[in-house]
Amino acid sequence: MTTQLGKHEPLPQGKHFDITGFAEFEAIESALHHAIADSEGIVRDMCLHILNAGGKRIRPLLVLYSGNLFSDGNKAELLQTAVAAELIHMASLVHDDIIDGSPYRRNKPSVNKVWGNHFAVLCGDYLFAKAFGLLSDPGAAAGMSYMVEAIQGMCYGEILQASDKYVTSISLEAYYNKIAKKTALFIARCCKAGAVVAGADGAQTDLAGQYGMNLGYAFQITDDVLDFCGDAAAMGKPAGEDLMQGILTLPVILLLRHDAYGPWIRQMIQNRAFSDENIHRVKLILEETGSIKKSYEIAEYHMERAKAALRLLPQSRYTDMLSGLADMLQTRVN
Amino acid sequence: MTTQLGKHEPLPQGKHFDITGFAEFEAIESALHHAIADSEGIVRDMCLHILNAGGKRIRPLLVLYSGNLFSDGNKAELLQTAVAAELIHMASLVHDDIIDGSPYRRNKPSVNKVWGNHFAVLCGDYLFAKAFGLLSDPGAAAGMSYMVEAIQGMCYGEILQASDKYVTSISLEAYYNKIAKKTALFIARCCKAGAVVAGADGAQTDLAGQYGMNLGYAFQITDDVLDFCGDAAAMGKPAGEDLMQGILTLPVILLLRHDAYGPWIRQMIQNRAFSDENIHRVKLILEETGSIKKSYEIAEYHMERAKAALRLLPQSRYTDMLSGLADMLQTRVN
Repeated sequence: MTTQLGKHEPLPQGKHFDITGFAEFEAIESALHHAIADSEGIVRDMCLHILNAGGKRIRPLLVLYSGNLFSDGNKAELLQTAVAAELIHMASLVHDDIIDGSPYRRNKPSVNKVWGNHFAVLCGDYLFAKAFGLLSDPGAAAGMSYMVEAIQGMCYGEILQASDKYVTSISLEAYYNKIAKKTALFIARCCKAGAVVAGADGAQTDLAGQYGMNLGYAFQITDDVLDFCGDAAAMGKPAGEDLMQGILTLPVILLLRHDAYGPWIRQMIQNRAFSDENIHRVKLILEETGSIKKSYEIAEYHMERAKAALRLLPQSRYTDMLSGLADMLQTRVN
Repeated sequence: MTTQLGKHEPLPQGKHFDITGFAEFEAIESALHHAIADSEGIVRDMCLHILNAGGKRIRPLLVLYSGNLFSDGNKAELLQTAVAAELIHMASLVHDDIIDGSPYRRNKPSVNKVWGNHFAVLCGDYLFAKAFGLLSDPGAAAGMSYMVEAIQGMCYGEILQASDKYVTSISLEAYYNKIAKKTALFIARCCKAGAVVAGADGAQTDLAGQYGMNLGYAFQITDDVLDFCGDAAAMGKPAGEDLMQGILTLPVILLLRHDAYGPWIRQMIQNRAFSDENIHRVKLILEETGSIKKSYEIAEYHMERAKAALRLLPQSRYTDMLSGLADMLQTRVN
């Protein structure tokens, strides 16, 4: 742990808010490696592969920061809960890549690409078991049911996403329900798990959950926009990939409601006419019609609601950290 | 619950020991349905499909019987732990069928066959989460780490099995290590989980585990033999299927050590020469060389060790039940 911010040291803002230098980030990296230290053979190789592929570690950071709002210092069970959240996230990514047949994850070959679907299924199961092993510690057990809800939500969300593919009549409600289950619920449950393990009361835990839920919506909507406007190389996937897979995201759903261009994109999706030229044109039209701008505004709205929940909690360095994390996620390019 | 045996009512013996009429079996069936009652849509359809495909419910019965050795009556947490064990078993079967590409399970189409691999992965994850949700109840939490060990063991066991395919030089130690992880550990951990949730002390819990581990070895070895000698229709798979998939089981490993026939079967496996005629011939030779008989004797040895562990525990209706369960598993034909 090389960096430790004092309670009142000003935090860097926006995209300059670099979490990787913070003590919490390093504590999580170290604890993640410790968690899989007793694994062996191919299981170990797979776990290390996915662990070393990196990641923003958003979920464990949210557990830690949310917990630290209510318990000063480094409660060991909080770090265990944080690590469990990241292991569950890793397991779900490994299984997602099987589901999507993705050969790459974070610019590296996916587990299924290297070891095949068979071992990748087992790798995910192993990581889930590892996570619940950590949560079986009595001090961390309070967060268990939140993690269970998160996994169940993700399963429903993935099924909704698969069922909704290419469905151009998708409602905004259906879109919200899908991203709630697929993304926002897990992020909210990380915040609630951190709070409850640290001893927060019911009302405080709910506020942490409101912060997380809105952060999760904003995170997913920003992700949706970045599918068209992000740094494709840094994201490790081509622009418009969601659309090409039939996943209709917020900017596209808004465009589908546009008088002039709605029928055009509807036709394009129904014909699966995803040529490079068409995808390029979609990007231009999303900008021109303000669909990108509107999507960012909706993400911004959720970020503001997230921060409003934070303001109702006891103010400390950690409310600042959670607010900074929100800014960082909103201004990211991958 | 239509049937309730009195503590001293004599138990049926051997293959006539029919668990399906017992109160515990019915309690488990009912609790399994209750556990997935709040699931929705496709998730619900998949869960009901696998649940209604039936099964011997060995693992939850072992949890209940092992627990009832130490707590008179029906401790609610014991039933929850039992149901969690069966949900974990179901999840692992769903994922196994993806791994093996099996279109059938218990004579019905597998989840992957009906809904595809994508949804089957999610169905397994959902069932794991459900199981851990049940184990998050404070009264059941003591069994959690045993269930975690069981899942991790199964992951290792499946990987060992996949890595050992067609390897005719497989040692008996490697075979035992594989079936320990793939099968016996889970069965042992069910017994330990039941005992510990019911309040057994360390030595008693270990004895329950010894019973389970030996029962698990015997169960798997009997399974190995039934691959050649079982009722193929009732098992829902053709004779010699393990061998055709390259899984070398105890009877085959014994035959590989036979002076006259060892080289013949080694050649056959290395050439993947699994014609119906050859499989039929393997069956005859397994009988002729005593490989089947020897395998049954080894299974019997483990059953005796299982019962020896039982005799060191406080005697009651439930030690009789556990002994009867062992007899039933040993004399089964599918």
